[in-house]
Amino acid sequence: MMDIAQKIADKAHDLFIRYGIRSISMDKIAGSLGISKKTVYQFFSSKDDLVTTFVENEITVNIARCESLKAKNSDAILELFFILTYAKDFYKTLYPALMHDLENNHPDAFKKLHEHRQGYLAELMKANMTCGVRNDLYQDDLNFEVITEFLLESLTIILNPDLPHINNQWELLFGYLIRGLLTAKGLALFNHYKHQQEGPLLNGKYFMRSFWDG
Amino acid sequence: MMDIAQKIADKAHDLFIRYGIRSISMDKIAGSLGISKKTVYQFFSSKDDLVTTFVENEITVNIARCESLKAKNSDAILELFFILTYAKDFYKTLYPALMHDLENNHPDAFKKLHEHRQGYLAELMKANMTCGVRNDLYQDDLNFEVITEFLLESLTIILNPDLPHINNQWELLFGYLIRGLLTAKGLALFNHYKHQQEGPLLNGKYFMRSFWDG
Repeated sequence: MMDIAQKIADKAHDLFIRYGIRSISMDKIAGSLGISKKTVYQFFSSKDDLVTTFVENEITVNIARCESLKAKNSDAILELFFILTYAKDFYKTLYPALMHDLENNHPDAFKKLHEHRQGYLAELMKANMTCGVRNDLYQDDLNFEVITEFLLESLTIILNPDLPHINNQWELLFGYLIRGLLTAKGLALFNHYKHQQEGPLLNGKYFMRSFWDG
Repeated sequence: MMDIAQKIADKAHDLFIRYGIRSISMDKIAGSLGISKKTVYQFFSSKDDLVTTFVENEITVNIARCESLKAKNSDAILELFFILTYAKDFYKTLYPALMHDLENNHPDAFKKLHEHRQGYLAELMKANMTCGVRNDLYQDDLNFEVITEFLLESLTIILNPDLPHINNQWELLFGYLIRGLLTAKGLALFNHYKHQQEGPLLNGKYFMRSFWDG
């Protein structure tokens, strides 16, 4: 039984991402799995229920990546680079089409997204900044609240399909945005990463991506 | 004759800013000046013509402020801070309501705005970055195009009425965004400004505002 629920959720996930939420009905989901709509309704009471499940799954994946990153106990600079990268990946799936559907037609799912951003992601970034200040990598007079809000909001610029030159340059821009936090000590470490033999980080290409990319 | 044209343009300017472009007709402009609509049409062939004049005037003011700033020959850090401040003031008048009207109903005026941004403002910022690099205040591996585009676009975040915590913090955020460009030498100068007796710059309050504010 669980297996069917999972299959339905996975199929809905694929269809939502590929065609948008509005254009996918319970009929289409059932049809593309070769099962009856009645079977779908046995597991999900409404399309809205499936949409909420979809958003919850995206949030779960994002949290798992971030927790795996935290477990690596890196310095604040690398950690923030990957928090931003994972947040970018998270929003890239949703932005702008699905986000628009969610905001207008699926208030519960949209609320969960908002809570994830203002709760988990914002707290993670503020903890990162506290850690960076403690290790003298970030300046000690940052306004964490304002900068966290700005960084999360700046993802809408970085993912804006009307700004193609910027979309391709997210690694460079994350590097730039992290630099704005740094002390002289932080800047030295930043430049060290940027000029590593293994490949530049924070300047266009991942450094040891396989290790960091959760 | 010129005097009446100027009076009509000034009145239209005030009314557009106060009530939005859509809700202001040629009738209302004429009525609030106590003149006939026929007189208005002697000087402006259409409301669209008045809207274009309005945008051209806003652009002229912005250019005058920036040229006055350039004449002060300051270092790149202070200059960029005020370029961003003037650009913020420029877009604050227009964003978001008027910008929306312009985009949807006044293509000529909107095109002039776009050209001002991609032309004058973008070139001014790129020249600033070239100067900052030459004086070893900005790092020498910046991608001017991408960062200029990002900075101009970030004004939409800073002016977003749905982000009130950020709106009030534009000086702090401009300081943060400038810091992302700096070399160690630039950072030292930045911190010098920030801790000046005359009052903090780049950290919440203008430094010698009367001198800089064109």
